[in-house]
Amino acid sequence: MARPDGRAPNENRPVTITRNWLRHAEGSALIEFGDTRVLCAATVEDGVPRWRRGTGEGWVTAEYAMLPRSTDTRGARESVKGKIGGRTHEISRLIGRSLRAVVDFKAMGEHTITLDCDVLQADGGTRTAAITGAYVALADGMKYLRKKRGLKSNPLVGSVSAVSVGIVQGQSRLDLNYLEDSVAQTDMNVVVTGDGKFIEVQGTAEGEPFERERLDGLLDLAVHGCGELSEIQTKALA
Amino acid sequence: MARPDGRAPNENRPVTITRNWLRHAEGSALIEFGDTRVLCAATVEDGVPRWRRGTGEGWVTAEYAMLPRSTDTRGARESVKGKIGGRTHEISRLIGRSLRAVVDFKAMGEHTITLDCDVLQADGGTRTAAITGAYVALADGMKYLRKKRGLKSNPLVGSVSAVSVGIVQGQSRLDLNYLEDSVAQTDMNVVVTGDGKFIEVQGTAEGEPFERERLDGLLDLAVHGCGELSEIQTKALA
Amino acid sequence: MARPDGRAPNENRPVTITRNWLRHAEGSALIEFGDTRVLCAATVEDGVPRWRRGTGEGWVTAEYAMLPRSTDTRGARESVKGKIGGRTHEISRLIGRSLRAVVDFKAMGEHTITLDCDVLQADGGTRTAAITGAYVALADGMKYLRKKRGLKSNPLVGSVSAVSVGIVQGQSRLDLNYLEDSVAQTDMNVVVTGDGKFIEVQGTAEGEPFERERLDGLLDLAVHGCGELSEIQTKALA
Amino acid sequence: MARPDGRAPNENRPVTITRNWLRHAEGSALIEFGDTRVLCAATVEDGVPRWRRGTGEGWVTAEYAMLPRSTDTRGARESVKGKIGGRTHEISRLIGRSLRAVVDFKAMGEHTITLDCDVLQADGGTRTAAITGAYVALADGMKYLRKKRGLKSNPLVGSVSAVSVGIVQGQSRLDLNYLEDSVAQTDMNVVVTGDGKFIEVQGTAEGEPFERERLDGLLDLAVHGCGELSEIQTKALA
Amino acid sequence: MARPDGRAPNENRPVTITRNWLRHAEGSALIEFGDTRVLCAATVEDGVPRWRRGTGEGWVTAEYAMLPRSTDTRGARESVKGKIGGRTHEISRLIGRSLRAVVDFKAMGEHTITLDCDVLQADGGTRTAAITGAYVALADGMKYLRKKRGLKSNPLVGSVSAVSVGIVQGQSRLDLNYLEDSVAQTDMNVVVTGDGKFIEVQGTAEGEPFERERLDGLLDLAVHGCGELSEIQTKALA
Amino acid sequence: MARPDGRAPNENRPVTITRNWLRHAEGSALIEFGDTRVLCAATVEDGVPRWRRGTGEGWVTAEYAMLPRSTDTRGARESVKGKIGGRTHEISRLIGRSLRAVVDFKAMGEHTITLDCDVLQADGGTRTAAITGAYVALADGMKYLRKKRGLKSNPLVGSVSAVSVGIVQGQSRLDLNYLEDSVAQTDMNVVVTGDGKFIEVQGTAEGEPFERERLDGLLDLAVHGCGELSEIQTKALA
Repeated sequence: MARPDGRAPNENRPVTITRNWLRHAEGSALIEFGDTRVLCAATVEDGVPRWRRGTGEGWVTAEYAMLPRSTDTRGARESVKGKIGGRTHEISRLIGRSLRAVVDFKAMGEHTITLDCDVLQADGGTRTAAITGAYVALADGMKYLRKKRGLKSNPLVGSVSAVSVGIVQGQSRLDLNYLEDSVAQTDMNVVVTGDGKFIEVQGTAEGEPFERERLDGLLDLAVHGCGELSEIQTKALA
Repeated sequence: MARPDGRAPNENRPVTITRNWLRHAEGSALIEFGDTRVLCAATVEDGVPRWRRGTGEGWVTAEYAMLPRSTDTRGARESVKGKIGGRTHEISRLIGRSLRAVVDFKAMGEHTITLDCDVLQADGGTRTAAITGAYVALADGMKYLRKKRGLKSNPLVGSVSAVSVGIVQGQSRLDLNYLEDSVAQTDMNVVVTGDGKFIEVQGTAEGEPFERERLDGLLDLAVHGCGELSEIQTKALA
Repeated sequence: MARPDGRAPNENRPVTITRNWLRHAEGSALIEFGDTRVLCAATVEDGVPRWRRGTGEGWVTAEYAMLPRSTDTRGARESVKGKIGGRTHEISRLIGRSLRAVVDFKAMGEHTITLDCDVLQADGGTRTAAITGAYVALADGMKYLRKKRGLKSNPLVGSVSAVSVGIVQGQSRLDLNYLEDSVAQTDMNVVVTGDGKFIEVQGTAEGEPFERERLDGLLDLAVHGCGELSEIQTKALA
Repeated sequence: MARPDGRAPNENRPVTITRNWLRHAEGSALIEFGDTRVLCAATVEDGVPRWRRGTGEGWVTAEYAMLPRSTDTRGARESVKGKIGGRTHEISRLIGRSLRAVVDFKAMGEHTITLDCDVLQADGGTRTAAITGAYVALADGMKYLRKKRGLKSNPLVGSVSAVSVGIVQGQSRLDLNYLEDSVAQTDMNVVVTGDGKFIEVQGTAEGEPFERERLDGLLDLAVHGCGELSEIQTKALA
Repeated sequence: MARPDGRAPNENRPVTITRNWLRHAEGSALIEFGDTRVLCAATVEDGVPRWRRGTGEGWVTAEYAMLPRSTDTRGARESVKGKIGGRTHEISRLIGRSLRAVVDFKAMGEHTITLDCDVLQADGGTRTAAITGAYVALADGMKYLRKKRGLKSNPLVGSVSAVSVGIVQGQSRLDLNYLEDSVAQTDMNVVVTGDGKFIEVQGTAEGEPFERERLDGLLDLAVHGCGELSEIQTKALA
Repeated sequence: MARPDGRAPNENRPVTITRNWLRHAEGSALIEFGDTRVLCAATVEDGVPRWRRGTGEGWVTAEYAMLPRSTDTRGARESVKGKIGGRTHEISRLIGRSLRAVVDFKAMGEHTITLDCDVLQADGGTRTAAITGAYVALADGMKYLRKKRGLKSNPLVGSVSAVSVGIVQGQSRLDLNYLEDSVAQTDMNVVVTGDGKFIEVQGTAEGEPFERERLDGLLDLAVHGCGELSEIQTKALA
């Protein structure tokens, strides 16, 4: 029943956030959840997508992708295949939605921040690491925007982090690595604000359908894990 | 605080399932959740996708799409755009995952059932109607497969239905229609087995992040709604 | 020499037109030619394609598609393949051309009506059913346009229906079903106005090249069949 | 009422066929209908498309395309646009169907001949020139195939040519050039065998719907024109 | 050590330039380097690409493509494959860059000339023939532009031609044909101005890496070959 | 005339090679040429592309890409655009060609090594950094292959590095950064073996056509620069 890397069931992997890893981006962070490494870059641009023009409100969006050899077996590039796969679409949308939940678009004015989350190395939890790292890049992007465009108030009205939880060998565990993720009966990604509210809850029975008690226990674990991640974000941004 | 169509907060829309609406498909159902109409067709084929060959196990997959004028404003065809959008990908994957949770692939042998869920008219809840209707088509597809290929045991080991729940004007409501969906603060799609366990839980804060109590209440409502849908499925398949 | 469904050689299949099958579309019809079922929806929009702007004239266009399991064997979705096939292109263009022959574009003003013809179930003659049903949807779309935009005169200057004719086992027959179509030596689609003139004549020798007398006989048959369809359209629109 | 180039209403444009214009192709012809120039190449290959394997029968197919500056205004390349347009699809299919009508597939054995018809310069009638020239390339391709693979009988059981006819300023005319084509009320492409039977008849009312007498007159004109084209083909192949 | 067609090592193939081969294009040339035949067309248009608007400067660009049966074995059309291959991209960019080196964009004003280079028959050296022929078409396109738009000075400030050189069986040779090209150890394409300066030098070791002396010898050969091509261009444009 | 970062004209930027930056890849290197950072990963797989099967020879290929925010202004992802641009194609091909020049394919047996070169941060010279880093990853990939598959001899028969040279403000300079690259009159990428021979020479006149003396000087500079890079590679691999 021991975890492959010896962690306690309610223990996150070691988390590292290297802020401003990139020179050109208005905000950036290289985030590591154990062996998972995601490079997050925030691009600040004037203007918003066509459907939002004239509203006076800003926009935040995200694109997620994996380098071909971030994984154990090389995956074909989506650019070479000529189309984006369902999983990529799904995760990009999840990241965007999660970040937008803590943004005051009116305060942004008609500007767009795009978060590029590129997985350099994958070992489970790439989407939760991406959300957690993208928040740091977004915070720096917003700082840049406030200063350059003289915004009156801070468009960032909260913080956001995310973690995966799951049931492995009957045990509820926090922050699954790839080995655990691939055998989990239930897998759940939870996005939580800095003050402990839910932004997104996505639980899937990979094996057996799960009961309400299980779900409740996993949610507790996730809130605990995100609490720690939130502290790490705060330190990185200090 | 009254709902636009006068329903009680914990009341599903009228549900109709027309079994065998199609002549060619091995299983089919036209399902209606109020004004939402989804045509679900099960196609049974010998063989499985390449990555599954030689395992002796079957496969179940799904494709979701909307007719261009199923919605209030015409949407461009994805075939004309030359690519499938993120939302379509996401829902197709959700339907497939939900149905696979009640299938015994070993019992299926190396056969594939594809569920096509085409939205003819949309009024909110198209993905949950699709899952609920696709289960009926799948059940008939499995019946066909058992008979034609002389399977020893039933590959269908449970039933599955789905419903949306959400918070509208501060009130937790069951089975949102489009009008309610478009103003919901929180929107949740829940997939439940016939015996009340969870297959998938997807909750999103569209507006404010939500608290644990809210989440708990929505889950109760969803289990209640799916219980009713499960009975309707049983009758349709009788 | 009897037809598979016992019809006389010059007899159409039973035709049903359910007007306003859709709630959102400005005009719609579910048309059935025997087991062939096509859902036709008219979308009325302000403005015209770029190449027509500033002419003061309107535009009518059509898109045809088949649901994957409308046919006996499931066909891959064109959206998944990422491109539209030649047959789809050809039929979409034919429907658009046929309808435009009875439209006065100047009377329309700069508005566009798009006819979506989606085959829900196929049993031969899907393109001719689509044209015949699309006319009904177009008529309602034009009615909507006249009223909403206060057009002075009716842009619809005639009616249009279509039928297939062909030579099967040496016999000239009207409105082939799939079984007949697949063995026809010659196959012809004819589009005719309500007053019996030709809009489109497309005859193809699938087997032997055909002689002038044959061609003449098929054209007679088609004019007869379209005469009946025209009456059914008139009743549906009454 | 005089034609722009002074021809009689029933007169073809000057036709030139340069056989074996290409060095690599197994058959080829540069065909000119006045200023319209189409390069037709036949490629003979062993094997047939997957759906035809094991039948012992051959296959003939065609691909039509226009060089970007074959026309008065430059058209974007379909390779650059990343997709093939409806018109291209339609004409490619027409050419293939027309040629297949004079081929005995059993006699071919499992070989494929592909006809590439590339319009180098366009002045109306490109599809009919393509069919007429492709027949010459096909004849040489078949000759090559018979010799190389020792076929017992000739798979070519007839000849085929094509011409456009139309009504311009109320007058029925043969082989329209671009100027006439662009103002024609009715436009018809007719594919005829060497012994005067019909393979394909495609008539379209561009302006007014047309009456039966008009159609009859155009068919007469087309048969006359194809008779002359057939003689020119025979000379080129002598 | 003799060349397959008996040429001396420093001898170009026979070169033919047929100016104004096309009727519609503002400039055109059919160029032949032995059996290699490339049709080059210049299209003159008002306006420039978006990124160049408002600069007062013109633009020159090129697109290269091969007809499917220009080669010994038929190649699939890039339009059918739905994407442009790397080699096509590379050569199109090379042609554009080469021509732009002799253009004064300010003198052009905001106009664009597009050079379409379509290989009708390939026997090695298609890209160098394309550059050499495209220059002739460009010269006529510029003449047209000067006259029609009343340009004050000639935007063409030099001439450009190109040739391939390579090491075959240890011998440095000029203008390789396909047979030589396919066995060359080193292959080099050199673009030279009319006054003997370099625009582009692209040398590749196909087999063994090559030494500086070899490189020097090949450059001498290329300058010699381009000198002759430049004279032929001058005659064609006289 | 001083360089923006104070280097001597014949001085490379500081170069860092971090070997085995990735955990999963059989060989990998994060290479830095000043602020340019490219992550190179070698994937070793059994089997070769279809066209090479049965030859007993291996294959080496490369794919180059830039992260969207590696550059000063965000670039759209090629996966989102659905197609790969000409520049990407060109550089991927260059890297593959360069590495293949030092590989003995017979010694490899039928195995493939794919080099993924992803630009994390761009500041000029990304293609030359990619080649130089990919060589290190390839060397480790070959080591892995030799051991795992028991190859008798080393398939790597030489080493390869690359550098850019150019003329900026009339001065010949080594290893241009972005600032210099964007104003260079002539830009040249040179690929050199460890023993000083040429694999690839690609020189382009961005501004004025250049004379032979200039070309000679740039080649000298490139050989000098690659000599230093070769030493750094040797140390990294020690």
